[in-house]
Amino acid sequence: MDAKSKTEELDTPLHAIGFEIEEVSPKRLTGRLKVTAACCQPFKVLHGGISALVAEALASIGAHVASGFKRVAGVQLSINHLNAAQLGDEVVAEAQPIKVGKTIQVWEVTLWKIDPSTAENRVVVASSRVTLLSNMPVPPHTRDAGEILRKHAKL
Amino acid sequence: MDAKSKTEELDTPLHAIGFEIEEVSPKRLTGRLKVTAACCQPFKVLHGGISALVAEALASIGAHVASGFKRVAGVQLSINHLNAAQLGDEVVAEAQPIKVGKTIQVWEVTLWKIDPSTAENRVVVASSRVTLLSNMPVPPHTRDAGEILRKHAKL
Amino acid sequence: MDAKSKTEELDTPLHAIGFEIEEVSPKRLTGRLKVTAACCQPFKVLHGGISALVAEALASIGAHVASGFKRVAGVQLSINHLNAAQLGDEVVAEAQPIKVGKTIQVWEVTLWKIDPSTAENRVVVASSRVTLLSNMPVPPHTRDAGEILRKHAKL
Amino acid sequence: MDAKSKTEELDTPLHAIGFEIEEVSPKRLTGRLKVTAACCQPFKVLHGGISALVAEALASIGAHVASGFKRVAGVQLSINHLNAAQLGDEVVAEAQPIKVGKTIQVWEVTLWKIDPSTAENRVVVASSRVTLLSNMPVPPHTRDAGEILRKHAKL
Repeated sequence: MDAKSKTEELDTPLHAIGFEIEEVSPKRLTGRLKVTAACCQPFKVLHGGISALVAEALASIGAHVASGFKRVAGVQLSINHLNAAQLGDEVVAEAQPIKVGKTIQVWEVTLWKIDPSTAENRVVVASSRVTLLSNMPVPPHTRDAGEILRKHAKL
Repeated sequence: MDAKSKTEELDTPLHAIGFEIEEVSPKRLTGRLKVTAACCQPFKVLHGGISALVAEALASIGAHVASGFKRVAGVQLSINHLNAAQLGDEVVAEAQPIKVGKTIQVWEVTLWKIDPSTAENRVVVASSRVTLLSNMPVPPHTRDAGEILRKHAKL
Repeated sequence: MDAKSKTEELDTPLHAIGFEIEEVSPKRLTGRLKVTAACCQPFKVLHGGISALVAEALASIGAHVASGFKRVAGVQLSINHLNAAQLGDEVVAEAQPIKVGKTIQVWEVTLWKIDPSTAENRVVVASSRVTLLSNMPVPPHTRDAGEILRKHAKL
Repeated sequence: MDAKSKTEELDTPLHAIGFEIEEVSPKRLTGRLKVTAACCQPFKVLHGGISALVAEALASIGAHVASGFKRVAGVQLSINHLNAAQLGDEVVAEAQPIKVGKTIQVWEVTLWKIDPSTAENRVVVASSRVTLLSNMPVPPHTRDAGEILRKHAKL
């Protein structure tokens, strides 16, 4: 029996920080992260590098699906840190493609913190653009990466 | 007795991925990372989000020192992923300020992989620019962040 | 009689490339540009630097209005060029704030090309984020910059 | 007789703002710009969009040469505006490749203002990274773009 979570199977560093991937499709990925001490910088707010890791990870998985399970590689990431998420906050993330070309894909990934008392009140934490190269050959020793993803993606 | 490593004290997520901070000063930070499975994306190369985390972390620590231990906050990160580092590679990182203003600091952070047989042969893995706001008041509950850093920085 | 156009009064380089500012408010700026030879790179498509100039200009004017006519300065621009606009195309641009803080503002600026036969069919040309510092003192010799803008902005 | 300047032949918008290209090679491009009113934003300093235009233009020409005169297209530009150049200042620019791959090239473009009394004292105005796609087919109607560039490049 496979007891590994979806996130653990799809992206090791993303799983390690406590992020949970929810929806996976060629048009949209979502997930959530509880801001624990493991995710914070010394001023006890969400580490900007963790936001960047979430952005890079979701965009890469999304581009991998959208390319029809070809190999993809991030070439550029730009992220704006807009509002601080505090230790204990619940953060939700969403990734959507803004361009799916044969060679280049660009994804937008946004993180919000949500007010636990009302799921509707959310404040943007970070907004990013990830540029990926998407027509790359898959080396034989990593062929299972696509198989695992295929299992989790809604196509 | 304090058995915590410098990296563990200065940046929890950076420590969690196995990164080791070496030099810390207002003009230059360095460190190294062994590329383990915990740092890789599904194609078994260094996860771009890990490179971004290293960039954001080193730039933030550097800006914190360069500001005279005022609170700093990353506002923008741009990173280009230039060459893949493979599982098992040794990666070195270096951060240097390109602007230390009263309000805004900009740091350049570069990651290279080194050929273990010859430390001189290094290939650039990622190159980034981190823009930080640097004149922020330190909230009382995070005052020790500056104290810890002061201990580790060469001024 | 003042025969200068709004764009000419508000931003000299933007006027020089043929761009026409339409709406100006703290929440949204719009304008349009006919892609002439003066805007093209050697492959006869809209020069990416012209898209960047439009982004920087609209974001700066918007931040200037949104700050209550304080001095603003762009600190970072990130732009993705997504689809080519050809010589002769009509391009429309829109700028909206994604963060209006006391010190930092971030604006998103998007450019589309429109199909002249149907104004509804538009394809994104470029998407950008401009980070600006917004609490700067206005030097006496540039005080009229705010006055002119005040005249053209819908508040 | 062809009396057009090198810049006019290579990049129309760059010529229009008064920029003068000097060196052109696959490893380095240089040029200079006098900051006139036509290059300024309303606060009478060099318009950030003009710096971005210079960066995009030099990187594109450089990538075009470095690719062996294949068609190139900018996909992403990130630029940090570091210090203001005033009306009347002399600005110099330099572009260098940081990655020349078959598919992706990344160029760094830096702008400085120089103290006219001593050419050695220069202050950085802007620092940028341009990511370009470089293996594109050249459409027949733009074939002369490569020919003109070949004439001006030191190979």
